Amino acid sequence: MNAAQLWNRYKRYLSRIPALGLTLDVSRTGFADGALDHLDLNMVAAFREMDALEKGAIANPDENRMVGHYWLRAPDLAPTPAIAAEIRKTIADVKSFAAAVHSGKPRPPRAERYTGVLCIGIGGSALGPMFVADALGDPATDKLRIDFIDNTDPEGIDRTLRRLKGKLPETLCVVASKSGGTPETRNGMLLVADAYKAAGLDFPKQAVAITMPGSRMDKTADSEGWLARFPMYDWVGGRTSELSAVGLLPAALQGLDIDGLLAGAAACDEATRDRNLKNNPAAVMALMWFHATGGKGRKDMVVLPYKDRLLLFSRYLQQLVMESIGKQLDLKGNRVEQGLTVYGNKGSTDQHAYVQQLREGVPNFFAVFIRVLEDGGSSREVEPGAMAGDFLHGFLLGTRAALYENGRESMTITVPRVDARTVGGLIALFERAVGLYANLIGINAYHQPGVEAGKKAAASVLALQGKVIAALSDNPRTADQIAADIGSPDDAESVHLLLEHLTANGRAQLADPVSGAFSRVTKGGGR
Amino acid sequence: MNAAQLWNRYKRYLSRIPALGLTLDVSRTGFADGALDHLDLNMVAAFREMDALEKGAIANPDENRMVGHYWLRAPDLAPTPAIAAEIRKTIADVKSFAAAVHSGKPRPPRAERYTGVLCIGIGGSALGPMFVADALGDPATDKLRIDFIDNTDPEGIDRTLRRLKGKLPETLCVVASKSGGTPETRNGMLLVADAYKAAGLDFPKQAVAITMPGSRMDKTADSEGWLARFPMYDWVGGRTSELSAVGLLPAALQGLDIDGLLAGAAACDEATRDRNLKNNPAAVMALMWFHATGGKGRKDMVVLPYKDRLLLFSRYLQQLVMESIGKQLDLKGNRVEQGLTVYGNKGSTDQHAYVQQLREGVPNFFAVFIRVLEDGGSSREVEPGAMAGDFLHGFLLGTRAALYENGRESMTITVPRVDARTVGGLIALFERAVGLYANLIGINAYHQPGVEAGKKAAASVLALQGKVIAALSDNPRTADQIAADIGSPDDAESVHLLLEHLTANGRAQLADPVSGAFSRVTKGGGR
Repeated sequence: MNAAQLWNRYKRYLSRIPALGLTLDVSRTGFADGALDHLDLNMVAAFREMDALEKGAIANPDENRMVGHYWLRAPDLAPTPAIAAEIRKTIADVKSFAAAVHSGKPRPPRAERYTGVLCIGIGGSALGPMFVADALGDPATDKLRIDFIDNTDPEGIDRTLRRLKGKLPETLCVVASKSGGTPETRNGMLLVADAYKAAGLDFPKQAVAITMPGSRMDKTADSEGWLARFPMYDWVGGRTSELSAVGLLPAALQGLDIDGLLAGAAACDEATRDRNLKNNPAAVMALMWFHATGGKGRKDMVVLPYKDRLLLFSRYLQQLVMESIGKQLDLKGNRVEQGLTVYGNKGSTDQHAYVQQLREGVPNFFAVFIRVLEDGGSSREVEPGAMAGDFLHGFLLGTRAALYENGRESMTITVPRVDARTVGGLIALFERAVGLYANLIGINAYHQPGVEAGKKAAASVLALQGKVIAALSDNPRTADQIAADIGSPDDAESVHLLLEHLTANGRAQLADPVSGAFSRVTKGGGR
Repeated sequence: MNAAQLWNRYKRYLSRIPALGLTLDVSRTGFADGALDHLDLNMVAAFREMDALEKGAIANPDENRMVGHYWLRAPDLAPTPAIAAEIRKTIADVKSFAAAVHSGKPRPPRAERYTGVLCIGIGGSALGPMFVADALGDPATDKLRIDFIDNTDPEGIDRTLRRLKGKLPETLCVVASKSGGTPETRNGMLLVADAYKAAGLDFPKQAVAITMPGSRMDKTADSEGWLARFPMYDWVGGRTSELSAVGLLPAALQGLDIDGLLAGAAACDEATRDRNLKNNPAAVMALMWFHATGGKGRKDMVVLPYKDRLLLFSRYLQQLVMESIGKQLDLKGNRVEQGLTVYGNKGSTDQHAYVQQLREGVPNFFAVFIRVLEDGGSSREVEPGAMAGDFLHGFLLGTRAALYENGRESMTITVPRVDARTVGGLIALFERAVGLYANLIGINAYHQPGVEAGKKAAASVLALQGKVIAALSDNPRTADQIAADIGSPDDAESVHLLLEHLTANGRAQLADPVSGAFSRVTKGGGR
């Protein structure tokens, strides 16, 4: 297509949300002219299903649950007055709690006031809060310093705690787990509670829980008398929980504009219910995903925001998109092995990493550029007439052109700036695109059955470890022998791997490196 | 395959580097039994080419350059005594400079001593240093605080400088650019120099350059009298420069063990020259890449280190692997569109993000687990007999099993711990695998011709911007009109996008939103 044709295509298909100043340009994707002029029957059905979902249908049939994240920013739309009231109350509670903390009460037992918050959570309880904290925060001016623990790596937890050394008396700890039983979060909480105790502090007095009422964590928090508890709901999935208490509480504590987040998301929701594609970038994006991947995940989505503050967006989207779309079965039970792979960091940095491959290499992707109009920061000239932000913007346009020249598709989301409103809008935009796309390809976007397999396998590994430890003796035996002795001859490989790990941590001993025989740790023995 | 067969396969094909305690398990990839028992002719040739490369052949023919990153950690192998002496001198200079800074001299002009280092660089001058800083550093004990600027985002640069407010008098600034002309780095340097000046400081007195002798930056540093200069060489590519001054200087300043990094890499290099695959995990990995992707990049490589400190490894590998392998043409000039896509963050965190898709969804990937045996941190029990690190290890084994059950391939690299030696070893392992794999598929792994296209396109965008700014007047015109007026009617779309950006930054004005006509900024006018 020549330049004039591309420019016409740009103008003809640009989709806008004026309330956010957001546009989506799909001129550099190769859909057929006219394909976006009216909705086909599949798209009509996809919209109808989104309507039903928003009205409270059981849109997650496998788990028999409603899917209500859109109500979080428009409680009037909730299917019952009780749900609407609950949403409003939680938002109000988050705000008043954060305001109270900022004003110095609740006063921490052993410090003048809180200066920081340590958030413990994983998956949906970490990726959204971390993205928003980095997108909107500023260590120089945030009301509270914010840190995260999002894994069960004891050394990683320890490093975070070392950095907070001396600051725990003035650090609030927010523990978020929807189910209240996520092992990584539970482990993080236990290690952090130890650190509070070692510092002479009473952890419950500085701890806040975000979890489903009645969950294990909720009961713990209740019985130990934690400082506060905020609810999660069974109708909000982890990966769409950023605008529930899970995301709002850390953001409010950090001092970010949660009203802006909610309003931006609400504005996007309102726009993206529109059947007119010129006004609905989420629907256009879903259609482009279908176009680019054949509706089968045949290409990866490379997300390239040209703005440092959006660095963590693609990590957030990895969960939102891949956990939603990556499914073995469709709603009819057919084996479809669906998916949409997401990766990316930021431009122009990534141009110096892998854009070489994007431009020239295996054509297994399409790109989503995110273009931010306002530069911010210094406006000094770095070359005559050109500022640092002009380079950033120029690199985006240059890479978009270079990819197109070589037959690589891209689309471009433009926002005026990175603020609470646009960040809320971007989150809602991709949530809606995921919902519509899942309807188009006929899958349940709201469950995660594949996660269970890994959890079960891990649980059986840990159960096996218990047996291995119990079976260790002063008599050196190989993994094969121990596996046989504990009645699990088929688990010899796992037993061996567990013994390697136990040995590295001083809990078993490689007694004979030649035969690979392990024993209990003897004093002064072992390698 | 049943459990006993898998265990046999594990034992039969495990490849080891005893000097590093590193192993590679490929039992969960589906190569044919026997395929690793001896080298085929292609692999024999791949080794022969690596030998020639290490001896100083022009292994990067397009740029007529030697490829010498392996000499950086074994200067005895350098093809000339002059190169060997240069390498040794640089390492010695890095160490003595860092030691001097740590001991308080050179004393900063307006502070007692240096407490931090701010590194400016992008691509190979940032990804390695950032990975190593996070993998080995500890903010609680590092000799100098370390920060990075790796983009030309003025607001991102500003945020970093706000965080360093008041600390610039005691902050050393290291600017790394091999060519000395990378715009992002140049822009970062100019904005940072402004901040030093605004703080009443003399930037050159606190600035250190790492660049090719004679480059533009080298000349600037020389003429301005920068505190120090360290060399880059034309025989070291950006993405393999972590063990040159580019990586060593920041690491040494931070107080990390650069001898360990070099020794670990040297030990890996030595092992991975071995033709016996049982002793050469790099060669096995290259063969598995070939097996898994058909030698054509048909699958993505998902890198999953189960350790917080290795979070940035996959970002580092994105450049090392994708910029090396992602090529349009092979060495014979055939259009091959090669590549090997890399993404990943860390386990078990990513299990709560996208492992749902890996397990159940589109089978477009293979996984590389990184297993770290020593847990570190707290060893308190979180459940009877189980510690946080047991969960981390159990999740790795569980996910490996869950993927295999569903026909998804993986391999597992095991290292005893994350320290300088193993990090150096991991870097060298992937460098060697990339080199061997590139030989197998017949491409030049050491140039990046596709990066030029984006740079040229960006340069022409910036040139166009200059014309647009010059053409703006009080007379509102549309992008079409301005493009015609400056003699570039084909650039109307770019002109429009540039005007949007200029307008958002107060440098143009949307005079008529209906027609889309822009003018020069008039006082108090515009939207």
